[in-house]
Amino acid sequence: MRRIALGLAYDGSAWQGWQTQPHGQTVQDTLERALAEFAQMPVPTICAGRTDAGVHAAMQIVHIDTPLDRRWESWVRGVNTFLPPSINVAWAQDVDLSFHARFSALSRTYTYVLWRGRVQPALWAGRAGWTHHPLDLDAMRNGASHLIGQHDFSAFRSSQCQAASPIRTLTRLDIEEQGPFVVLTLQANAFLHHMVRNLVGALLQIGQGREASDWMATLLEQRDRRLSAATFMPDGLYLSSVEYPAHFGLDGHHSPDQLSPFRS
Amino acid sequence: MRRIALGLAYDGSAWQGWQTQPHGQTVQDTLERALAEFAQMPVPTICAGRTDAGVHAAMQIVHIDTPLDRRWESWVRGVNTFLPPSINVAWAQDVDLSFHARFSALSRTYTYVLWRGRVQPALWAGRAGWTHHPLDLDAMRNGASHLIGQHDFSAFRSSQCQAASPIRTLTRLDIEEQGPFVVLTLQANAFLHHMVRNLVGALLQIGQGREASDWMATLLEQRDRRLSAATFMPDGLYLSSVEYPAHFGLDGHHSPDQLSPFRS
Repeated sequence: MRRIALGLAYDGSAWQGWQTQPHGQTVQDTLERALAEFAQMPVPTICAGRTDAGVHAAMQIVHIDTPLDRRWESWVRGVNTFLPPSINVAWAQDVDLSFHARFSALSRTYTYVLWRGRVQPALWAGRAGWTHHPLDLDAMRNGASHLIGQHDFSAFRSSQCQAASPIRTLTRLDIEEQGPFVVLTLQANAFLHHMVRNLVGALLQIGQGREASDWMATLLEQRDRRLSAATFMPDGLYLSSVEYPAHFGLDGHHSPDQLSPFRS
Repeated sequence: MRRIALGLAYDGSAWQGWQTQPHGQTVQDTLERALAEFAQMPVPTICAGRTDAGVHAAMQIVHIDTPLDRRWESWVRGVNTFLPPSINVAWAQDVDLSFHARFSALSRTYTYVLWRGRVQPALWAGRAGWTHHPLDLDAMRNGASHLIGQHDFSAFRSSQCQAASPIRTLTRLDIEEQGPFVVLTLQANAFLHHMVRNLVGALLQIGQGREASDWMATLLEQRDRRLSAATFMPDGLYLSSVEYPAHFGLDGHHSPDQLSPFRS
């Protein structure tokens, strides 16, 4: 048996999230159907981050176990043959059997792409969040600074969250202006259910001047989801990378970054 | 009667081009249905550039005539209420009755967004062209330099083209690298049918080293579509602006550029 890591990109707007469902309209269901077509046998998948309905991935990591001895180009080209245009395998790589897409991950990075304009942007429908309010980005950055570090993120955790603990370590929350877009980059050891969308919602309350920057510290202390902001729309949310220990040797075959237009 | 100019953006991947068709699945059909709902009467539209199936617009210009006296915000918000997310009105402005979206235009600018990578980019499915070949951008720029100016563009004109003359004046053809993307910007007084896609196809032949840069001069001289390259895919093509004489006072209300991530 060999273990293979796959790098996957998908436009989540057409899919009911990552995780398999009886109706079969998820990224995992679609990927597993394509893998089964290619391998001519069932191929279960484990992913690094189970994205919600409408959430995209610029680089999701998946691992599979297979008795097949094929070159990685075969996995990429072969499986893509059976995938729709909104999902693709960007690379495949042999990994040690001790590698686990979810449990080996040191951290996940999410990118939120937000459009500021009077009307919703047709070219970015489903793929960027949208606000027509003017935003004070420095106030948002001040708010974000309260979140960095290890905290109890109960205030930003959905009621459906199944994680054993609400403690997470947020190592990065950058807010950058890119013309009419604002690009938020969040990195943490792991995220709770809806955590990024809930954080973005609260940051926008601060950006619009409805709350002061130190409201973030208050929300963390209160640990009460009901006192925080509404969950912001999934449209602009992308799982953009997953970080693993170097000894696994995952190099992504220098796969180009599909979100590069939003990097400064 | 008042004349109103509308700025329109659309993701063309779901639509059978601009121009009205009996099946009704075009941008014009959809816009005219929305305008009729808003105005409670038929509202015929004239556009600046009739985009093909799968071609997008970051800023299409349309004019309509109407007896209705509404503020421009009403046109924008009201009509958008009846449009799907993949089409929106970005702005509306009163214009002189001598304004004509098509005939008053001095020039059109198209942007072609091209992804370079081993596999098709799922996040840009339908919205970027794709090549897995390495490209010599300087050779492409040399090829492009032959095209600037007034020429007979018969070599780049589809057999269905209905234009009276194949003479066009190309004022700009920039080729810029944006990480894994190549962004081509073309400006001309007007374009023949399939002209941008045929030019991109020929430039890619040069970029891949299959033809020398001065092949472009040969193609122009030969004026024979059959000797040129295949029509390149519509996916990455955007009508990005239309230029009018200043006296019409079209300012687009400083509508933000939806393609800004691809501008250097």
